[in-house]
Amino acid sequence: MTDTQQASQVGIARAHTNIALIKYWGKRDKDLFLPMNSSLSLTLEAFYTDTKVTFDPNFTEDSFYLNLEKQSCEETQKISRFLDLFRQRMAVPLFARVESLNFVPTAAGLASSASAFAALAGAINQASGLDLDLPELSTFARRGSGSSTRSIYGGFVEWDMGTSSEDSMAIPVDDAGWDIGMLIIVVNAEKKTLSSRQGMESTVATSPFYPAWVTSAKEDLDNIKQAIADKDFQTVGQITESNGMKMHATMLGALPPISYWEADSVRAQQAVRQLRDKGFQAYMTMDAGPNVKVLCRASDLEAIKEELSKEFPKDKLVTSLPGNGLELLTEQQWDESLANFRK
Amino acid sequence: MTDTQQASQVGIARAHTNIALIKYWGKRDKDLFLPMNSSLSLTLEAFYTDTKVTFDPNFTEDSFYLNLEKQSCEETQKISRFLDLFRQRMAVPLFARVESLNFVPTAAGLASSASAFAALAGAINQASGLDLDLPELSTFARRGSGSSTRSIYGGFVEWDMGTSSEDSMAIPVDDAGWDIGMLIIVVNAEKKTLSSRQGMESTVATSPFYPAWVTSAKEDLDNIKQAIADKDFQTVGQITESNGMKMHATMLGALPPISYWEADSVRAQQAVRQLRDKGFQAYMTMDAGPNVKVLCRASDLEAIKEELSKEFPKDKLVTSLPGNGLELLTEQQWDESLANFRK
Repeated sequence: MTDTQQASQVGIARAHTNIALIKYWGKRDKDLFLPMNSSLSLTLEAFYTDTKVTFDPNFTEDSFYLNLEKQSCEETQKISRFLDLFRQRMAVPLFARVESLNFVPTAAGLASSASAFAALAGAINQASGLDLDLPELSTFARRGSGSSTRSIYGGFVEWDMGTSSEDSMAIPVDDAGWDIGMLIIVVNAEKKTLSSRQGMESTVATSPFYPAWVTSAKEDLDNIKQAIADKDFQTVGQITESNGMKMHATMLGALPPISYWEADSVRAQQAVRQLRDKGFQAYMTMDAGPNVKVLCRASDLEAIKEELSKEFPKDKLVTSLPGNGLELLTEQQWDESLANFRK
Repeated sequence: MTDTQQASQVGIARAHTNIALIKYWGKRDKDLFLPMNSSLSLTLEAFYTDTKVTFDPNFTEDSFYLNLEKQSCEETQKISRFLDLFRQRMAVPLFARVESLNFVPTAAGLASSASAFAALAGAINQASGLDLDLPELSTFARRGSGSSTRSIYGGFVEWDMGTSSEDSMAIPVDDAGWDIGMLIIVVNAEKKTLSSRQGMESTVATSPFYPAWVTSAKEDLDNIKQAIADKDFQTVGQITESNGMKMHATMLGALPPISYWEADSVRAQQAVRQLRDKGFQAYMTMDAGPNVKVLCRASDLEAIKEELSKEFPKDKLVTSLPGNGLELLTEQQWDESLANFRK
């Protein structure tokens, strides 16, 4: 077009999903995604989102393509609101085309929102030229989805609840490069009937256990950070398992009671206890869904998968090593990612 | 024998088991069985224990026959210690023969201790001639097994936590004669691996949710008593389901976490929710084991059993109407009971 002065600006980023070991469950500010307690997660290599953002002066609206398909107006509006957070800082705010590829297989039954908003934040950051540093970028990612905050970094990551929107951010804790792995027992990959948001709100509003959860999560966080510093895997595992169960306990205390467990979730829990009886260092955690995540030694991943395959189909046992934090991609890497996705 | 002055003294009693709707979970005094909170139960007609106690000056030791079989020294010692509570009050304490018949079918997966110690207390009371009134007798039953306290009465029964061993006793609340029934979905009738006593102790000692449980159980008790007075079945059911889940939540908060749930427990929970979706008034509760108890309308028992039999074997679905409190039996009734048991 002859009447445009600016070229289009492009940013491409990859972010991995993460699984909380100390859970985030409940917001103190719904609009700003400020949590009731600090949390801590492990970023996973096997699951990630690649996102390309193009700002172009010729665009007359935002558009959003997920896994090569143009998304509805409603879905695009969520992305637009997120883009607006950055556009408020841009000298010349432009409309954007957002293209995302989710390498979080549906079969894994994992929410992709953590990697999605982290990758989106990274791509916008590059395309906009704002060049925010990672701590600040993590506060932006948080506004898309709370758990995205932690996907800015790799390994073990803390999300410090902070005192305001400006300092409720991710802090890298440890690269988890000391024989750490995770295996997911996929009980049900369908979308859950009660969203995390609804579950959290009801729990905060009605569970008599909620105040003790907040206090207890704070203690668990202090203790797990010490155990990580000590590379004391057993303590990390025990705190992880206890903290996850406590989150589910707070939900059972809601009125009416909330449970995301299915029959096979209990079978999977029993299988994890049996792994320990057999001498494996294996500890479980569960999120707002029926799947069971097993924190274990990376060097045991294959043996544990073999053990569990006696009880669960192998394609429902998904393993991962710890993943890296946000990465910027080149156009060539994006093309490879596209080719990969089409396979 | 020529050197005996006294004839033998006999007492025979029947007591029914009960299922707590507001749970007893945790003792403030382990020796005296004083609970941390007041509780409330429904006595069940279908499950009971008949016990005959004979004091005889010729006996040189206590003996205990359960279901026609002589019990070990260890089992008999428990009975002796319980007999001692009464013997302390008897002018001439004698050794006793205790014969018990448990009509709590193993298949129902129910603990029989509630009916057992209530029937035993009733039979000793008669045989000893102490003639304690029911409130006081309930404090004696409590010393055998906490939940026995409530089996002294029929229908809905409160166990007032009291201030001491003398006033921690049962109080009859309502005869439950207003279309009340219970169905037990038997998931596993085997003896549990972690006893209630152990589960309680660990929960009280380590769960951060325990203080809120105690506060919350008190509120639930006040509210369910009001709902019973109002014959408001839906509220009785909702409080029952919520309180039971909260008890299990306090256990999940223990370190290490405690769960009595099996995979089929979750299937049974889902089946109860589906019953409600179909319009039945049905609410679940669970004790320190995997079985699911369904509080429902007596008039719906057969229809609910039919519905559930699509998912569970019919012989694992056991129904009951509300039961009566402690009853004294004649020798003739005891003989009938014996004949019944042998069938």
